[in-house]
Amino acid sequence: MAVPKRGRGRPAGQSGTREMIVAEARRQFGERGYRTTTLRSIAAGAGVDPRLLLHYFGSKQELFEASVELPIQPERALEIVFADGRDGVPRNASRLLVSVLQDPHSRGAMTAILRAAVAEPEAADLIRDLLTRRMLLPIAQRLGGEQPELRASLVASQLVGLAVVRHIVGVEPLASASPEQLAAAIEPVFAHYLNGNWVQPGL
Amino acid sequence: MAVPKRGRGRPAGQSGTREMIVAEARRQFGERGYRTTTLRSIAAGAGVDPRLLLHYFGSKQELFEASVELPIQPERALEIVFADGRDGVPRNASRLLVSVLQDPHSRGAMTAILRAAVAEPEAADLIRDLLTRRMLLPIAQRLGGEQPELRASLVASQLVGLAVVRHIVGVEPLASASPEQLAAAIEPVFAHYLNGNWVQPGL
Repeated sequence: MAVPKRGRGRPAGQSGTREMIVAEARRQFGERGYRTTTLRSIAAGAGVDPRLLLHYFGSKQELFEASVELPIQPERALEIVFADGRDGVPRNASRLLVSVLQDPHSRGAMTAILRAAVAEPEAADLIRDLLTRRMLLPIAQRLGGEQPELRASLVASQLVGLAVVRHIVGVEPLASASPEQLAAAIEPVFAHYLNGNWVQPGL
Repeated sequence: MAVPKRGRGRPAGQSGTREMIVAEARRQFGERGYRTTTLRSIAAGAGVDPRLLLHYFGSKQELFEASVELPIQPERALEIVFADGRDGVPRNASRLLVSVLQDPHSRGAMTAILRAAVAEPEAADLIRDLLTRRMLLPIAQRLGGEQPELRASLVASQLVGLAVVRHIVGVEPLASASPEQLAAAIEPVFAHYLNGNWVQPGL
């Protein structure tokens, strides 16, 4: 396959080829991990010239980012979490988390990201960026407490822990607890991390 | 090497050989994962007859369990957590968690277990057993609230989430927060999960 020239205009068929490359990348990153997957192996799997991958994505890291399926778009998550104003944030955030983990598709996307993050430092960078900078930090900043970054990363710790213990490791009875019970247990924890008065200056 | 006969009495040199096998098993399970490591590959690495492994450990699962280093002995953890009576449990538990994660050796043992649990279902079984049945459930039972198993598994979720987000993924500023700040943030969460009145009957 010829490498399209860089520049304005969209080469014919770019969209389908790009999607095919992303699908193949998702498959290989998922099965082999980040490190052993190469631009060359993805190109071979997709039946295209490796230069095409560089043309579309610039680097392996960028192709990896494009291949990650988010469990929910950050903008949509922020909308849901703030739908009932500031006071509703802990309740809406805990319900959103539980519902994202309840749906097989978004749960699959989330556990795939977490497995990658635990197995490989390169994937971990991406998770840090997605989870905290794009989703949890904007929530904490909008709530306006001290040390919003620390608050956001504590929320991340409970969120990640729930996904790992409930869905990846499968600890009972957490694994079979009802979504309503879980949201009720977690809401006060999110309220504490996001709004609580526990920040100790100088520590 | 001859296979020692089963029965009473300790074959000469058993202790050294057993330790060597455990060390080789730990190395191979850590590097290759549970599934691809075999009794045969461990025997080859340790330079012993594979039948010797069966003699000492009975099965690959049992050898795996013997090769896992606990970050802290469950009995010792219970002692520390209950040292100041029931009211001191959330404080002592949050401090213990943070100090286990602060020490490079026990942190290494904990992150190794978690990496294994996320990567492989067989390892996950073991984690469930160690973390909840032997450590967190006895704490929750002694505190005597409703649904001690659910309480214990929620504590596990926060504990695992902290280890993953702070030490495996390395999300800042959690990764560099002081142990005192962390313990202060987490203590009320442990109190809520262990003693809180959030269990909803019928959910």
